[in-house]
Amino acid sequence: MKIRSVRTLLTLALLICSFRPGAAGLQDGNRTFQQTVDRLREAGLSSEGAFDLLRRIASVGPRLTGSPGAAAAVELSLRLMAELGFVNVHAEPVEVGHWVRGEVAEAEVTASGTRAAVPLAVCALGGSVGTPDRGLTAPVVEVLALDELGRLGPNLKGKIVFFNRPMDRRLAEPFSAYGGAADQRVNGASAAARYGAVGVLVRSLTLREDRNPHTGLMQYDSGVPRIPAAAVSTLDAEVLSALLKKERDLSVSLRMNCRDMGRVTSANVIGELTGTDLPDEVILVGGHLDSWDLGVGAHDDAAGCAASLEALRLIKAVGLRPRRTIRVVLFMDEEFGGTGGRAYVRAPQRKSERHLVAAESDRGGFVPVGLAVGGRDSKVLEKITAYGSLFKPLGVSFIVPGGGGVDVAPLVEQGAEPAAVMINSQAYFDVHHSALDVVSSVHPRELELQAVILAALVYILAQEGI
Amino acid sequence: MKIRSVRTLLTLALLICSFRPGAAGLQDGNRTFQQTVDRLREAGLSSEGAFDLLRRIASVGPRLTGSPGAAAAVELSLRLMAELGFVNVHAEPVEVGHWVRGEVAEAEVTASGTRAAVPLAVCALGGSVGTPDRGLTAPVVEVLALDELGRLGPNLKGKIVFFNRPMDRRLAEPFSAYGGAADQRVNGASAAARYGAVGVLVRSLTLREDRNPHTGLMQYDSGVPRIPAAAVSTLDAEVLSALLKKERDLSVSLRMNCRDMGRVTSANVIGELTGTDLPDEVILVGGHLDSWDLGVGAHDDAAGCAASLEALRLIKAVGLRPRRTIRVVLFMDEEFGGTGGRAYVRAPQRKSERHLVAAESDRGGFVPVGLAVGGRDSKVLEKITAYGSLFKPLGVSFIVPGGGGVDVAPLVEQGAEPAAVMINSQAYFDVHHSALDVVSSVHPRELELQAVILAALVYILAQEGI
Repeated sequence: MKIRSVRTLLTLALLICSFRPGAAGLQDGNRTFQQTVDRLREAGLSSEGAFDLLRRIASVGPRLTGSPGAAAAVELSLRLMAELGFVNVHAEPVEVGHWVRGEVAEAEVTASGTRAAVPLAVCALGGSVGTPDRGLTAPVVEVLALDELGRLGPNLKGKIVFFNRPMDRRLAEPFSAYGGAADQRVNGASAAARYGAVGVLVRSLTLREDRNPHTGLMQYDSGVPRIPAAAVSTLDAEVLSALLKKERDLSVSLRMNCRDMGRVTSANVIGELTGTDLPDEVILVGGHLDSWDLGVGAHDDAAGCAASLEALRLIKAVGLRPRRTIRVVLFMDEEFGGTGGRAYVRAPQRKSERHLVAAESDRGGFVPVGLAVGGRDSKVLEKITAYGSLFKPLGVSFIVPGGGGVDVAPLVEQGAEPAAVMINSQAYFDVHHSALDVVSSVHPRELELQAVILAALVYILAQEGI
Repeated sequence: MKIRSVRTLLTLALLICSFRPGAAGLQDGNRTFQQTVDRLREAGLSSEGAFDLLRRIASVGPRLTGSPGAAAAVELSLRLMAELGFVNVHAEPVEVGHWVRGEVAEAEVTASGTRAAVPLAVCALGGSVGTPDRGLTAPVVEVLALDELGRLGPNLKGKIVFFNRPMDRRLAEPFSAYGGAADQRVNGASAAARYGAVGVLVRSLTLREDRNPHTGLMQYDSGVPRIPAAAVSTLDAEVLSALLKKERDLSVSLRMNCRDMGRVTSANVIGELTGTDLPDEVILVGGHLDSWDLGVGAHDDAAGCAASLEALRLIKAVGLRPRRTIRVVLFMDEEFGGTGGRAYVRAPQRKSERHLVAAESDRGGFVPVGLAVGGRDSKVLEKITAYGSLFKPLGVSFIVPGGGGVDVAPLVEQGAEPAAVMINSQAYFDVHHSALDVVSSVHPRELELQAVILAALVYILAQEGI
């Protein structure tokens, strides 16, 4: 067979896909998967079920790991799963950190010899130590990358280091831009402390210029002094940078009373539709119940929790009875160290179970555009690709290898295949980890489509295995 | 060659696509198309050029065909194109209708024998006649489809017909849901008038439940009395429907002073980057300058105009000189009859030109997800599909036959191939034709991506032809 054009080949591929028996074939007796997915779509889109669930989760407020809000979210989730008629609904304990933001996060810039101070919108980075009660005042030095610190070396002693490398706007994929700038937030404090710096300010990780600081986890290296670390809003980062260009001799005063409160016991919340034939084979879907505390974590990750719960609700609502177990897990502590994901695999109940696929939903609640499934040569990627025509009308325009995330990483290490719905993320970092991550920034239909896609994905896998 | 699995075939197709000489090959000397598209992306995403242009267009306010706002938009567009350094910038005359909404659009429901009236949020549909000055009061009859009218027949005489079929939420693609409900708005008045109805209320074409009426064009059949036609907000449609279920004997009073003001001369606005080798071969890109008048037409279609202008700005900004002419046309009167598109093909200048491709950008300013290009067996579809790997990093996950629209339809009839960027439309009808279609509903990066994709599309076509 001579392939005369790419179009011929693509047409052929399309034809083969469309007419492959599996995709349109019978299942469970007298219904095709296409009919099943149509019913899931109709049940989903005729409601705003996922959005209603998101609203209820967000109604407890911020759910910072270890906080009363997180505890309330555990209680609420147990109630929600019971209401939805899931089975084996229970909580499994997770030991988590308990860091509190405190009431104060203030910063201002002062030029030497003047009294006029310019306030900066800042927030403590998650895990940071506080400043002394009266605050911390020190000359400020701007850097754009961690590897500039070595060059500045001794000049950093006693200084506040201001990390101001923006996310690279030129990248079409905001997650890549985030990945390219997050080192400043995660590792900046210890990197600067090695040279004697006394504090760090980090430009907020967002592509927007506004006055909202964006928090997120920072980590201290052992053996290095723990210095306070704050995020500064992008607009204020621009202001500070402009001031430094005019006058090098500037000081920043920083005052924060965030602090670590030790460890407490929290929980993952679990429910399922038990498989009729192979109950010990598990298809997992979930998000994380904890959130940052400036907004209510609507996109990050009430959206993922709500879409996962809604996926099971839809499967139940249209009367499907999966052959393998479909389980929803609302993980605790994605944001503050991933202890929930690790506790899940260590729980004694796991001994008798085999997790085939673990779908983590933690990319926000915007419109779905694709699927990432399994390793490059995995059976699960092959399977879902073969069923691609079922997902296309739901907005899934590509299926690529991938998936995974903090919560399911321990499961994937043990052999489960990862999966994730890929989501339009152009506006995600506008709200991510900031006071803007609120319910009104989520579109009910966009979130519902994610739930319908998850429902179709986990149901097909529960019926077909990998 | 035996094809052993769909995945093998898809992998093969992908490989062939990726390594086809054209996609990565040289152009214009020493640069690859990949390098060119990278530069367009970097120039685009490092700015908010399209959004800035959108803001300027929206700043003239509503641009209803024939209105002072539309005239101001023509003047502004000429200035913008000159500022941007386009050549052959000029306006071409278009005879358009001039309908005015007037100052009054009120409706209320009254039960017979009571004095309490429930107000309804309504607006005149575009092209509707007004009511008598004192308004129009008549019993109201709810129908869900035009073909119910025949059954009700004589019962409709002297009545106001209330068309209340919602857009079908269960469809994943909102444009399909819109298409399935728009007959009530476009043809409802004349269909009802044939049976003696004296007015119509039409449920707004949106998937949201709120109190914003959505306007849009309606048309009168000749030989049938012209009766007033108003859109009612979805929430008020629900209220009216609920009231009718409790009590059949309800009247609606409707008062509107919209009216037709005859015809006036307006214009299409045109500018270009003239081709270096084949200036008479034209690749056209454009949107429509007119808008509805309840919001400022930010998505519909300042977005399309801005993305088209920005596409040419980017091509110029990165120093590209197209072989064929790339022309932007901001059409007048897409919304009120499409006279601009017809005037464009009839203009004497067209005689010496050949339009290869006409890309119409009129699907809103949300995130791009794909491309629709040409007929099913067209050379242009084959060409752009072969260059698919250039568009993929910009979010273009599929390339399908299609494109076209009201403005370029006359060009397509004459042999030009249509093209369009496909846009996520889950939230489009939330704002479409309503007071919600304002600048803040557009995301700068999502719009910029559309401009970058258009720039890459029209530049490749200008270099390669079809």
